[in-house]
Amino acid sequence: MRIGILGGTGPAGKALAARLASVGFDVVVGSRSKYRAMEVVDKLLEQWSDRRLPIGAGDNAQAADADVVVIATPWDGATQTAVSVEDRLRGKVVVSMANALTKLGKEFQPLVPPRGSVAASVQAAVPHCLVAAALHHVPAKELGDLRHPVESDVLICSDHEPAVEVTSDIVGRIPNIRPLNAGELAMATPIESFTAVLLQLNMHYKTRVALKLTGISEAVAPTAAGAATSEGDGSGAAPVAGAPASAKAAAGRKGNGSSGAAAAAEPPA
Amino acid sequence: MRIGILGGTGPAGKALAARLASVGFDVVVGSRSKYRAMEVVDKLLEQWSDRRLPIGAGDNAQAADADVVVIATPWDGATQTAVSVEDRLRGKVVVSMANALTKLGKEFQPLVPPRGSVAASVQAAVPHCLVAAALHHVPAKELGDLRHPVESDVLICSDHEPAVEVTSDIVGRIPNIRPLNAGELAMATPIESFTAVLLQLNMHYKTRVALKLTGISEAVAPTAAGAATSEGDGSGAAPVAGAPASAKAAAGRKGNGSSGAAAAAEPPA
Repeated sequence: MRIGILGGTGPAGKALAARLASVGFDVVVGSRSKYRAMEVVDKLLEQWSDRRLPIGAGDNAQAADADVVVIATPWDGATQTAVSVEDRLRGKVVVSMANALTKLGKEFQPLVPPRGSVAASVQAAVPHCLVAAALHHVPAKELGDLRHPVESDVLICSDHEPAVEVTSDIVGRIPNIRPLNAGELAMATPIESFTAVLLQLNMHYKTRVALKLTGISEAVAPTAAGAATSEGDGSGAAPVAGAPASAKAAAGRKGNGSSGAAAAAEPPA
Repeated sequence: MRIGILGGTGPAGKALAARLASVGFDVVVGSRSKYRAMEVVDKLLEQWSDRRLPIGAGDNAQAADADVVVIATPWDGATQTAVSVEDRLRGKVVVSMANALTKLGKEFQPLVPPRGSVAASVQAAVPHCLVAAALHHVPAKELGDLRHPVESDVLICSDHEPAVEVTSDIVGRIPNIRPLNAGELAMATPIESFTAVLLQLNMHYKTRVALKLTGISEAVAPTAAGAATSEGDGSGAAPVAGAPASAKAAAGRKGNGSSGAAAAAEPPA
């Protein structure tokens, strides 16, 4: 599968390009200037010269010709960039990963874009594509450092079931990343804005945090997309699994040592 | 320390009362009707009759006489309830834990209350108290089940440093809960609305999730409040600790088996 990244020359786009290529996807890094894309891709390939990453460079139109397209521009360019290649996006899954944030004093604070989120703005501007919001909470530096796995949950939301499925499949190929189906595209509002909280924690604790949710058993999570299709039984809110499920999830959770080896936590006594 | 819980007869309030009492706090469950509070407290004490929990009952005014006051009403009653006991809250730390949510079809979606969050609405309505937003993401059922620890991070934000410190100290006394300083009260907007995402995941995966963030080393986290005071050095955004910090955090993270025993993850190779 070929994945194009619009605005792929920024930190998030570069990191995602390297990581996706490292797990076997053909990646096209797009930019308004194809020369800028070429420069960035050459540097990426040089940085990981021992890995033969399948990454190409192009303008945004060339990136938009891929099977699945990720928008990795700054948030205020996302809609405009999508519209600029609208015809090429028709019918495709388009992944929006931008967060609308501003820095007020020492703190990052979320902005509310038109329609509540960047992803919803893109979906409204390019209605014939299938927008999924995803990858907002994965720290770019860790995502781009192929020497270590990234331990993170990735929340995915969309109004289109195939977009959730395709995005889950792609993200789920990255070791130690767990895709989670977070519902309709309306959820992009709290998901995007929550990034401000993570950045705030990064500043405060001088680190880079990533999101993990407890209580979802590892047995369930890989079927993120599948579970979605069985959602219609109306019993979703029923607390089928309480504390035992937590314990199960804990027991099955992978360790995130830099070796990437799975390390089961001690089972409950 | 005595902790009063306004509107403490709902699921969140009851659960918090039991949990705080179980770690040694004197708790007063308040309600508009003190008889309703008495009924709820009697049931709680009966449920945990082997534990001698120090929980009393009263009306909201009596609960507001405590040293620290938690507002556990439904979100749309939080401001009004705070104002009803305004004089008693003067100068005190007041913890807002409500989330403004609505159910649209099968999905929970966040509402935006006046001033962006329930907590900011309360702070504006009762300006002489020190509001902290906290405890939004802890599942009530797990919080109230004293047989098992709750494995969760608790994001705390406030415009008043002492409110963060006091709330961190209280929350940090609960085993396996980690208080995190999430910055100014403006952060209550994304923190509260993110609860909708967690509820959505609960419905979808038929479980109850809780929040954990990776990348913050266990050595740093307990000093949540302390770290806040050293924040003014302006170097907050510097990535002092990258992937190694992640690995350290992973190695130091506690297992959450239902035994509550710490189980170190496998150290990085």
